[in-house]
Order: sequence, then structure tokens, then C-alpha cells
Amino acid sequence: MSVSPGTTLRVLRERRPLVHQITNYVVMNETANATLALGALPVMAHAREEVEEMVALAGALVLNIGTLSPPWVEAMLSAGRAANERGVPVVLDPVGAGATTYRTDTAKQILDRVRITVLRANAGEVATLVGVEAEVRGVESIGAGDEPGELARAAARTLGVTASVTGPVDHVSDGETVLAVANGHELLASVTGTGCMSSALTGCFLAAKPDAPLEAAVEALAAFGVAGEDAARDAKGPGSFHVNLYDALAALDPDELDGRARVS
Amino acid sequence: MSVSPGTTLRVLRERRPLVHQITNYVVMNETANATLALGALPVMAHAREEVEEMVALAGALVLNIGTLSPPWVEAMLSAGRAANERGVPVVLDPVGAGATTYRTDTAKQILDRVRITVLRANAGEVATLVGVEAEVRGVESIGAGDEPGELARAAARTLGVTASVTGPVDHVSDGETVLAVANGHELLASVTGTGCMSSALTGCFLAAKPDAPLEAAVEALAAFGVAGEDAARDAKGPGSFHVNLYDALAALDPDELDGRARVS
Amino acid sequence: MSVSPGTTLRVLRERRPLVHQITNYVVMNETANATLALGALPVMAHAREEVEEMVALAGALVLNIGTLSPPWVEAMLSAGRAANERGVPVVLDPVGAGATTYRTDTAKQILDRVRITVLRANAGEVATLVGVEAEVRGVESIGAGDEPGELARAAARTLGVTASVTGPVDHVSDGETVLAVANGHELLASVTGTGCMSSALTGCFLAAKPDAPLEAAVEALAAFGVAGEDAARDAKGPGSFHVNLYDALAALDPDELDGRARVS
Repeated sequence: MSVSPGTTLRVLRERRPLVHQITNYVVMNETANATLALGALPVMAHAREEVEEMVALAGALVLNIGTLSPPWVEAMLSAGRAANERGVPVVLDPVGAGATTYRTDTAKQILDRVRITVLRANAGEVATLVGVEAEVRGVESIGAGDEPGELARAAARTLGVTASVTGPVDHVSDGETVLAVANGHELLASVTGTGCMSSALTGCFLAAKPDAPLEAAVEALAAFGVAGEDAARDAKGPGSFHVNLYDALAALDPDELDGRARVS
Repeated sequence: MSVSPGTTLRVLRERRPLVHQITNYVVMNETANATLALGALPVMAHAREEVEEMVALAGALVLNIGTLSPPWVEAMLSAGRAANERGVPVVLDPVGAGATTYRTDTAKQILDRVRITVLRANAGEVATLVGVEAEVRGVESIGAGDEPGELARAAARTLGVTASVTGPVDHVSDGETVLAVANGHELLASVTGTGCMSSALTGCFLAAKPDAPLEAAVEALAAFGVAGEDAARDAKGPGSFHVNLYDALAALDPDELDGRARVS
Repeated sequence: MSVSPGTTLRVLRERRPLVHQITNYVVMNETANATLALGALPVMAHAREEVEEMVALAGALVLNIGTLSPPWVEAMLSAGRAANERGVPVVLDPVGAGATTYRTDTAKQILDRVRITVLRANAGEVATLVGVEAEVRGVESIGAGDEPGELARAAARTLGVTASVTGPVDHVSDGETVLAVANGHELLASVTGTGCMSSALTGCFLAAKPDAPLEAAVEALAAFGVAGEDAARDAKGPGSFHVNLYDALAALDPDELDGRARVS
């Protein structure tokens, strides 16, 4: 195992993998621009008529249930199964699981019917999916116990995924190892969709490193966290921070990234 | 009656109410970010499978018909009725009423079947809904008579709502009192969705002050207008103004807000 | 024939035509803001219940298949036929044609059933639609032969449209004349939806100059390219460039535009 966000970012920018995203209406532009700024190619396609064909062109598939409805869920299941058949890694972002029965059930249904490579979520959503008590408020996680590392490990084991649990400190586990990522900035919580962006970037890193999902998930969070730190530097609030974030993602220097990643 | 945007903003930031928004595709990211920048928590959910459960968690519901279609209208009606049953205040933004029959009829249908707390609209849309002559062009109001205060009062009486009619000067009425809000900046008209943002922020203020919709609607417009004034200060055009607007919403100082509100 | 982006921009800002856009979820906010920054009025409406009525109010219709699904395709066909009946010019942006069968077939179906005034696309998409070999990756064109001017001419003849093929240098043809536009900046490729914006702006210019689609398409690309050059000046990356782009569109000076357009 070797965590090197700089190396993977270099590979990603060279290959420019296509990252197919079936995501929510709120953040489509944002995750597309974050994907592009990092160096990969985003494509948004949600019609059942084309998702299987589109995912076959992609290096990763990202499923995000932030504004779900039945036709979108159908498309996610079709795309997910097609990705599984072709060995394309799949990221699931179960936005708002725990807030409504429909979201919780849909997230569980996707986990049941699609082999998910990385589950990227906040602590409340993950706790809901593994059956632990959690406080969720709309799509925000308020609290879910004191042991996010253990939560990640439990989720990985129970759900058979690499669990990437983001928060003030992120914890990623494959069920054995637990890695913590301490990069990031509190302004990330002031912009909607930064969680969704971290899922999209997880897809990008997975596309460049498909055989090591634990490492790819950690590297994505470290790179995104470093970009967040850079973006905060001369931000005056959430608006300018948001703009700076794309500049910072595009300016990420592979040569410096490993030195700045705070992974333990 | 007491208008104090600063006091309500302080309450809102302490409570962080969830504001459920069923809104149009064009502005979802924008109204979510404005809600978050102000200090409340946005949630976007439009599936009939979950809107009733989601609105039960919310402090206010915002319905916006900017890019309507039949399933979304159904969801708005379901969510609106569920909000009514639980005493959750409801804001309606009848985007484009008057431009097409479908928009006018849908706005009327929602007003008919849901008890709307605050109708937030431009003069052309309001005039359409109360049966006054108006010139509407797409989703822009071009002109609707010379007496916006009277229009607000007439709308409040006819439709049984608090009417919040925005324009160069905003007018809010409960059918008796008419209050004018003279904050704001002309650059607000250069960015799409600022009207929708003012509806979202009306929802935020209502969630913090649910028993005084006239005051809450006025306070929301004053706070948004002050943020617009701050955002204009070093803006170079609509792009930088738009970015500054989120910074300015997050930076709104409750201690200064009452002194800067121009309400009469 | 006379190409004068400054003259057309002046007319456009005076008349403020409504530009009806049925476009993808990713860029709706962006194309609406670009339209507004330039000086026209955007309206997004996609319900079959209203598209025919809405397009009757518009100076141009823009159809963009970036996140298509069957109900949206139906709406595009209805709106397109209604536009044809009323003499409203129609722009088609066949996003991702060539990437999936569904996109290619839909683009062809629209070309077949609606009289398209201007086809605005990248080389890969255009090549797909005229049956030339092309390499398309998701919604990005990677390569499509060495003769984009000839491709534009062939597309215009084969498809009976004005073909506007954008790339490092843009080529526009009515089947006889081929004009090249050399304005723009490489940062335009770092932001998602700039192609869609150029289609929206083509609609704006067409609305101001409906009887000269070749010239209007060229002028739109020249104006957008000049704005891109201005936006790049103090951009630090894709985020700040994106913001600057709206400022630059709003600041375009009709008196200087003709002198800065690099059309040959």
C-alpha cells in the first residue's frame, strides 16, 4: 500500500479519464467544474436510454442521490450494474440518508444491487446505513458518535465497501486499515456541494488508480483538502472561497502534494 | 409589530433552521448557497416519495415554479399541504406567472390548494394573480402600474397572504399595513435568480419568526438588500457581484443590520 | 453581408430580446447569466404544457441536449416546430453527439423534424452528424480531422443549416462562405459549459439579427471570444476566469468590438 496523491494526480492529468456522474441538480455544475479543474473529464448523463453506453466509456462512475426521484434511481441502478460488469469503479454518495425513508431505502437498495467501490458520506449518513444512532438534519450530519474511525471500519465491513467518512477529520477504511486525513478548512462547510465535490474527486482518483480504492479515496480527500486550504487563504467568505476552490484545484502541484497531505 | 432584521438574524444563526426548497433548476445551487451563507440549512427535495417527510423536519417551505412540470407541481402541492398540516410557513414564488397560461394556472392552483404564508414576486407576477393589467416578458416584469404599495395591499387582501412585491423599492403588505424596503442595488437585476434568492431568504426569516410573516418578509428583504449594497461595493460587473453577494450574506452583522435597514 | 458584432450588440441591448432556452441541468444558471450579462433576457422553460406559448414570446430558441431524456426531447421538438411556424430562429447544440447512440439519434431527429437555423457544436459532434470519422470522449471533442473549415461547409450543405464549429479557431459556414473567428482563450476549455454559453449567445445575436444567421453566428463567437480574452487577463485559474467572464460580457463595448474581432 502506498499513498501518494501527487503521483496519482500526475497519472490522472496525463490520462484525463472520463468520470460519469449521475448526481443531483444542485451541484451538477460544481462537480463538473471541480472534475475539470482537477484534470479529468466530467460527463453528466442520466437517461436510462444512454447510461449503460456512457459508463462503458468512463474510468469511474459517481452516483449521488441528492435530489433523487424514481427515474433517476432506475438510471443509477442500470449504470451501476453496467459499471460492475465492465469493472468500472463506482462511488456512492448517499446524500441525506437518514433524513427521509426514501433516501435511506434508496441508498440501501443501491448498496444491495450494485457493487460499490467507495462509499463517500458524512458520519450521519454512514451511521444510518450501518444501523448506528445518528442525528441527521436534512442533508447535514450533526453528530454520530465519537469514533468516526471505528464507524468507517464498521461501515467497510458491514457494507463491503471502502468507507470514506468525511468530517473535520476524514476517516477512510477498507475494513482493516483506517486512515485519517486532516487536510481541509472550515470554509468547506459554508459552500453547498463540497461533500458532493469530494465524491466526484474520489471518482477521479479511482479512475487513475482503480486497483487501490483505499489509497485512491484517501488521496482524493487529501488533494481536495489541500485545495481547500489554498482556497481559504485570501477568501473573504463563502463566495470567494468557492471561486478560489476551482483555481486551487487546477493549481494543485503534484510535486508538493505528498508533502502537504496530512494522512495518518 | 416590530421590525428588527438583526434580532431575527441572530435567532436564525443560533437555531440554524432547515429550509425545504422545491425550486427551479436554474437557481438551486444559488438559493442553497444563499441560505447557507445567511446561516440556515437548505435542503432540496422534490420527489413525491419524500417531500411530506422532509417538510416535517423543516422550519419553512419555499415553492418556486421557475422551471415547472407536472410531477414538480404535484410535489409542491403535496409538500404545501403537509406544511399546512404541521404549521410550517410556506413561501410561494410564482416565477413567470403571466408569461404562459401554464404558469399562471399553476400559481393559482397552488394558492387555491395550499395556505401560502408569503407570496414573494415581482409586480408583473402579482398583478397577474390579482387580475390587474401587467406587462410580463418571460420571467421579467416590465411594468405593472404605478402603485406597487397598493398592489401589495390588494394582493394580500385578495389572495389571503402576506404579499411581498419586490422591485427597485420593495413593498410588503398583510392587507392592512404596507411597508416599503428601500435597500438593494441595481446590480441585483444583472444576476439571474436574485428574486429566487430573496424568496429563499424570506423562508429563512420566516423559519426564525414564524408568527410574524409581515415583519419576517420585510426583514428578509432588508437583509438581502443590505447584502446587495455591500456586494456592489467593489464589484466589477455581474460575475464579481454574484460572488460578493455570498460573502456579504455571510458577513451580515446583526448589530448593524437594524441601523442600515431602510424600512418605512 | 456585413459582420459587425458591435452594431448587433447595440441593437440587442436596446431591444433586450427574450431568448428561450431548453438546455441541460449543468449549465442552466451559466447560460442564463451569460445571456443576461450580454444584455438579452433568458427564459428557461421545458414543460410541454408551455413551451409553444413561451417560444411565441421569444426572439430565438436554443435547444441543447446536454442532459437529455425523453420528455425533454419531446419538449424540444414541440418548441422547435412552434418556433418554425412563427419564424423564430432556432439554435441546436448537439452536446455529446457521437458519445452515445441516444445522443446521436436525438440530434439527428431534431435536425430532421425542426428547421435549425444555426448548428453550434464542436468538431467531433459535427463530424458525427455529417458522417465523418471523429473521436469523441464523453462530451469533449478530441479530434475530427484537419480541416474544420471544410467540415463546417460540409455540415452546412448536408444538414441545411448555418454550421458554427467551435474550437481553438472557430469556423462558420452557410455552405458557401466559410468565416473563421480567431478570438478566445484557452481558459475557456477549463470551465464546463462554455460551449453551451456560446450557443446561448448565438441565440442572442440571432434574435437581434434574425435575417443573417451566418453573420449573427460569427458575431456571437467573436463577442464571446473577446469577452474570454478580457476575462483571462487577471484570472488565476478556471474559477476566477469563470467569474470574470460574466463581468467581461457585461462590459463589452460595442464601439470597440468590431476592431477587436478577428474574423477572416
